[in-house]
Amino acid sequence: MFQAKRDQCYIAIDWGTSRLKAALCCTLANKSVEVLDEAECAGVQKNKLDFASTFLQITQKWRDDYGTLDVIMGGQIGSSIGWHQSPYVPCPVEPADIVTGLVNFECEGHNINIVPGLSCTLANGHFDVMRSEELQVLGWLEASASHRNGTYLICLPGTHTKWILVKDGVIQMFKTAMTGELFDLLTHSSILIQAPSDVFDANSFDLGADFTLGSSSGNLIHGLFSVRTKQLFEQLTPTAANSYLSGLLIGSDVRAAMYAQEWDIKEVERVIIIGESHISDLFKRVIKKQSSAVDCFHGKQATVLGFAAVRQRFLAQEWS
Amino acid sequence: MFQAKRDQCYIAIDWGTSRLKAALCCTLANKSVEVLDEAECAGVQKNKLDFASTFLQITQKWRDDYGTLDVIMGGQIGSSIGWHQSPYVPCPVEPADIVTGLVNFECEGHNINIVPGLSCTLANGHFDVMRSEELQVLGWLEASASHRNGTYLICLPGTHTKWILVKDGVIQMFKTAMTGELFDLLTHSSILIQAPSDVFDANSFDLGADFTLGSSSGNLIHGLFSVRTKQLFEQLTPTAANSYLSGLLIGSDVRAAMYAQEWDIKEVERVIIIGESHISDLFKRVIKKQSSAVDCFHGKQATVLGFAAVRQRFLAQEWS
Repeated sequence: MFQAKRDQCYIAIDWGTSRLKAALCCTLANKSVEVLDEAECAGVQKNKLDFASTFLQITQKWRDDYGTLDVIMGGQIGSSIGWHQSPYVPCPVEPADIVTGLVNFECEGHNINIVPGLSCTLANGHFDVMRSEELQVLGWLEASASHRNGTYLICLPGTHTKWILVKDGVIQMFKTAMTGELFDLLTHSSILIQAPSDVFDANSFDLGADFTLGSSSGNLIHGLFSVRTKQLFEQLTPTAANSYLSGLLIGSDVRAAMYAQEWDIKEVERVIIIGESHISDLFKRVIKKQSSAVDCFHGKQATVLGFAAVRQRFLAQEWS
Repeated sequence: MFQAKRDQCYIAIDWGTSRLKAALCCTLANKSVEVLDEAECAGVQKNKLDFASTFLQITQKWRDDYGTLDVIMGGQIGSSIGWHQSPYVPCPVEPADIVTGLVNFECEGHNINIVPGLSCTLANGHFDVMRSEELQVLGWLEASASHRNGTYLICLPGTHTKWILVKDGVIQMFKTAMTGELFDLLTHSSILIQAPSDVFDANSFDLGADFTLGSSSGNLIHGLFSVRTKQLFEQLTPTAANSYLSGLLIGSDVRAAMYAQEWDIKEVERVIIIGESHISDLFKRVIKKQSSAVDCFHGKQATVLGFAAVRQRFLAQEWS
């Protein structure tokens, strides 16, 4: 097994609201990154503000093996309910801007940097914010020089979908949709779904997606009730109702992104979906109904590359 | 006090999923209706299928005073989870059609009629259904001969808003929006609202309504997150966040009704809101941003008149 040298190793922690995901990483000679070990526990919401103890506990084995290690953290740990607050960096943001926003402190001899979140002001006067997703965008930008040329719309599906416009390597703006949270609420707490089902029904998913994708304004709020009436009139089985609902919501989300007033989709060369495959595949299926220029990129790989990119830029800055 | 004659009196019960609302009514010589007494208890969901006992208990005092009385019921009591199922009458529906769909049975000597619900098939192939709201529409139609001439869009705000197109006294079609249910879910179970507030903040409500009313397609799903970010950036107080969310949802609902593909709003002479004043006023405030031709009609009065209209037509039929 590869024996990493101590000074090439570091700890990367994506410390979110519900989950903390830590990785012992090692930068190789060819600048690629190897993840040597991983650990997980509950996130900020359950850490009861004792962040130091949580950090020391989750990293104990690595610290025992490697001694003092540099640490980079991203996510809600840098928010007002986190350990040390890292202010939002406003868009447009170049990768280098993120490094200047790092919040640095020590914990029992470990040098810790928290990556700042990003904010942006949209044309309609609304603000938007992200924390930790910027690492995935950075990671994707780092993965290939070609990613830093041209205009891309990046889609990060999840509890809150983020749509991010990137032009020539600069994060221009972004907006958030509550697609995943709405799906969970409507599945578990509304009159629409009697018995939630994990079985994917492609036809019902497409039926839902085609309805909201093809509909005129506001049809989500007027269309949701069809999840119930289609079951009443036996056009939809209770098992397939969840897939239909998922299609309705993702169709509405994708349509809003494709027709967003904040950007001109005709100027976007490709849509890039960064996430876990089960959810990325659903978004790809819907986006492909509108455009063939869509690719998926693995979410975990993007995060690892993003942390590595921050670290490299930070080290380069220290040495310059 | 007015002493009603036994044969002019009847019991009207709006028996819904969550509430049962019973009224002892009396038709006066001038055909107006007097409500002599009222009673309320939990609805179908909590009646544990023992509908006869619930009925006998809630009406006991009236039956003791007046003996055997005719009874008319509407709402979920006629659904598949109710007492006796009354099939949906498909649109277009004239008031007379509703009487032909009455389901009649006896309970301990009382002659009971359950009013059928309505269904319709929309241009997009979706079905829609209602139970008990048809009584309010009937009641409004009955309130003035002028209501039976011309094209009206009737709005019944509530957990599920119903938008009903009525032309020359005939219910043409309708659609349902889950506005109230979404408001409750997002208020109590999402990340948007930290501490639900009943205080109405007019400026924040208008800010939300103007955003979705003026936005292009799909902006509800992309706009909801602004409830959170506006608080983060201190553009919205936590107390006013509920009013803003309410504006966003009602704005989206009203916009979808105004731009519905199923009807041409230019052919609608007036929008009529039937409901309790606290919620009707909110819808009126938003609809008035689009059209000055909007009136409110009291919800309870509409229900009482609706039951009376069904009874009158039923009696006329029996005598003819």
